[in-house]
Amino acid sequence: MSERPLAGSLRVGIAGLGTVGAGTLALLRQNAAIVTARAGRPVVVTAVSARDRTRDRGVSVEGLTWHDDPVALATDVGVDVVVEVIGGSEGPAQDTVRAAIRAGKPVVTANKALLALHGGTLAAEAEAAGVPLAFEAAVAGGIPAIKALREGLAANEIRAISGILNGTCNYILTVMREQGRDFAEVLADAQRLGYAEADPAFDIDGVDAAHKLAILAALAFGRPVEFEALHVEGIRRISALDIAFAKELGFRIKLLGIARRQDGGVEMRVHPALVPEGEPIAQVDGVFNAVVAEGDFSGRVMLMGRGAGAGPTASAVVADLIDIARGRFTPIWGAEGHALETLPALPMSAHQGAYYLRLMVLDRPGVIADVTAVLRDEGVSLQSMLQHGRAPGEAVPIVLVTHETNEAAMMTARARIAALPAVLEPPALIRIGVA
Amino acid sequence: MSERPLAGSLRVGIAGLGTVGAGTLALLRQNAAIVTARAGRPVVVTAVSARDRTRDRGVSVEGLTWHDDPVALATDVGVDVVVEVIGGSEGPAQDTVRAAIRAGKPVVTANKALLALHGGTLAAEAEAAGVPLAFEAAVAGGIPAIKALREGLAANEIRAISGILNGTCNYILTVMREQGRDFAEVLADAQRLGYAEADPAFDIDGVDAAHKLAILAALAFGRPVEFEALHVEGIRRISALDIAFAKELGFRIKLLGIARRQDGGVEMRVHPALVPEGEPIAQVDGVFNAVVAEGDFSGRVMLMGRGAGAGPTASAVVADLIDIARGRFTPIWGAEGHALETLPALPMSAHQGAYYLRLMVLDRPGVIADVTAVLRDEGVSLQSMLQHGRAPGEAVPIVLVTHETNEAAMMTARARIAALPAVLEPPALIRIGVA
Repeated sequence: MSERPLAGSLRVGIAGLGTVGAGTLALLRQNAAIVTARAGRPVVVTAVSARDRTRDRGVSVEGLTWHDDPVALATDVGVDVVVEVIGGSEGPAQDTVRAAIRAGKPVVTANKALLALHGGTLAAEAEAAGVPLAFEAAVAGGIPAIKALREGLAANEIRAISGILNGTCNYILTVMREQGRDFAEVLADAQRLGYAEADPAFDIDGVDAAHKLAILAALAFGRPVEFEALHVEGIRRISALDIAFAKELGFRIKLLGIARRQDGGVEMRVHPALVPEGEPIAQVDGVFNAVVAEGDFSGRVMLMGRGAGAGPTASAVVADLIDIARGRFTPIWGAEGHALETLPALPMSAHQGAYYLRLMVLDRPGVIADVTAVLRDEGVSLQSMLQHGRAPGEAVPIVLVTHETNEAAMMTARARIAALPAVLEPPALIRIGVA
Repeated sequence: MSERPLAGSLRVGIAGLGTVGAGTLALLRQNAAIVTARAGRPVVVTAVSARDRTRDRGVSVEGLTWHDDPVALATDVGVDVVVEVIGGSEGPAQDTVRAAIRAGKPVVTANKALLALHGGTLAAEAEAAGVPLAFEAAVAGGIPAIKALREGLAANEIRAISGILNGTCNYILTVMREQGRDFAEVLADAQRLGYAEADPAFDIDGVDAAHKLAILAALAFGRPVEFEALHVEGIRRISALDIAFAKELGFRIKLLGIARRQDGGVEMRVHPALVPEGEPIAQVDGVFNAVVAEGDFSGRVMLMGRGAGAGPTASAVVADLIDIARGRFTPIWGAEGHALETLPALPMSAHQGAYYLRLMVLDRPGVIADVTAVLRDEGVSLQSMLQHGRAPGEAVPIVLVTHETNEAAMMTARARIAALPAVLEPPALIRIGVA
């Protein structure tokens, strides 16, 4: 390859030519003049790696060095920075990032699974090697959430960070609400439209959102990433009935990731939540993502935008490349390893909050007395109760809304209520509130 | 002053001890441990300057070097970075910033008027001297809008940037809508509550929002700031009647700052706008600010939060100080002076958009025919018309909504309509749309 057009350039190797890799290649070509001006020098792709050399990706790879093995790309002397967009927490993605760090090359990755599961070790290795490990694209796509949190709000003690972090779940919940349809049906539609994967578990069980929340929590509280400490629930059990009741009560149901600083530690959880309709995040619909950070001086700041897709993710990857080209460096979790906090993660059983509990019961005398007796015994105080119509001897839904109470007590109460003879199916329990 | 506690520290001089200066002092003390971790070294205030040494500001200035003259603070050998929070585009604020630049010291300022009116010259001077001139606090308070736009979205060609940039106006318009009250009354209340100044002109005539938009437009399009090229209208003429009609048509009225890349140049304007209720920015109420940037790859990104106040503004000032402590540098308008774009500013007369026109007319036969004849003559095509009730021989409001049309044609049409005998008062004209 000719050296001439690349004098002074930042030479980029892209490992992985899926949507994001191809998008990054396209952006760096289409916006070359803008990127050069903002980066202070050209940012040029010199090498790529992918499994299939012959596949048409909509962008030309002519003139680029092709590596079948991404690890070879990472050690290519013609590559200054490695963009890892292979995906997956193990295997080639991890090998490529490690090889780049060992070779002293900055890494830009969009890989949330890798960071959530191995971010602690990788960050320590990158810090020891003195190389940047950048990952704006790993959380919330085109929204510059990492930068806003780690640099823009750096002066704050962050009290809480929360967000709509998975566009697939938000799309499904939005369509369920707008069309009054049930989960399975809307999921099938979303799969047909390409908004959900053939195997949707990763998204709809909350795992993807949890990867992102683990990263945001590490940044917000300046502590190493700790994925295994998160409580994670998905949206499979959300029903059209609960969405309708939520609406009646003035709420929308969103899958939220929430991390909150509490006395003695940090609470981190992903689950469906009843969000008051007046909250700005309640209005974030469809495939959009949003992140809300609450700083002690800044107050609440919300960012919203497209959380996925070739364009938004490429925008984030290239923002990291521009930082690297300019020599702008921020420690991985906002502070050097020795300056990180040691706040422990709190167990979900310690959570305090209000709850929505929807039962399907046989409409007969004494049922409500039995249910409320259980709540009283477990120290759960009731804020309101909702029942529509009567159908003696038949199944009717009953909705109970509690005052703030303890998670462990609520779980015990739910189990006891589920065991009552008149309670016909497992009660639906949804936490209330945005943080 | 002892050197010992300051070894390795970034020594900060604060010029101006109003709300923002005192807030910055308070933040740097209260969050010293967090700031040290994020900045990689202590960030310590060593000197301050204000007019009145005796005033109680709620924070102690004991042990700090006091300068009656902020220019002396800028050249104090015990000061590494100068925070200018005096305010005002001329006089001491400008002198202090110039003195700091000449002394080779980085400057952090919250002064939007200074940047909007003299940012071009000051940026050139700072660039020539090789010193950072940082101003996150100048736009949208605690929202890291400058960083998000200049670094987070740096890979994009920005198509448009818009925002709710003045909390006073947004508060007044929100209360007018919620309570159905008129402008003068709500303004008086806002003044009593401290949400509006005794002399409110700067806010309600759109000047403050225009200062901020001028800065955002320079960053978004990578061109020098050009305040005098903005079209600026405030909210004095917005009536409860128009807010009610807007609601009926599915809109909210917001004071927006909008800058948009067009063929041949950039359009920059501040004026009240009818915003479709479904737009996220329509939901931004009260004193909150919001900024929406539309990048070619990122798509639309919205940021919202508190646009003013001691805490949010101090959060932004200290974010800049942390960048400086870390050595993170970004050129003032996103690229070096020689790499800025030369897109011209377009005149308002070239604007294309839809319009809301509300007339107060004598209810008599032929009036609507006269009005619509004028629109037809000027080439303005009507999308809808609204009139409630009849009151023969009396004054009734009529609302006209146009299709997209040219501003110059619309202005001519409005003037001709205003001159019709049956039109009783100057027509209210409000542009429609968020960008």
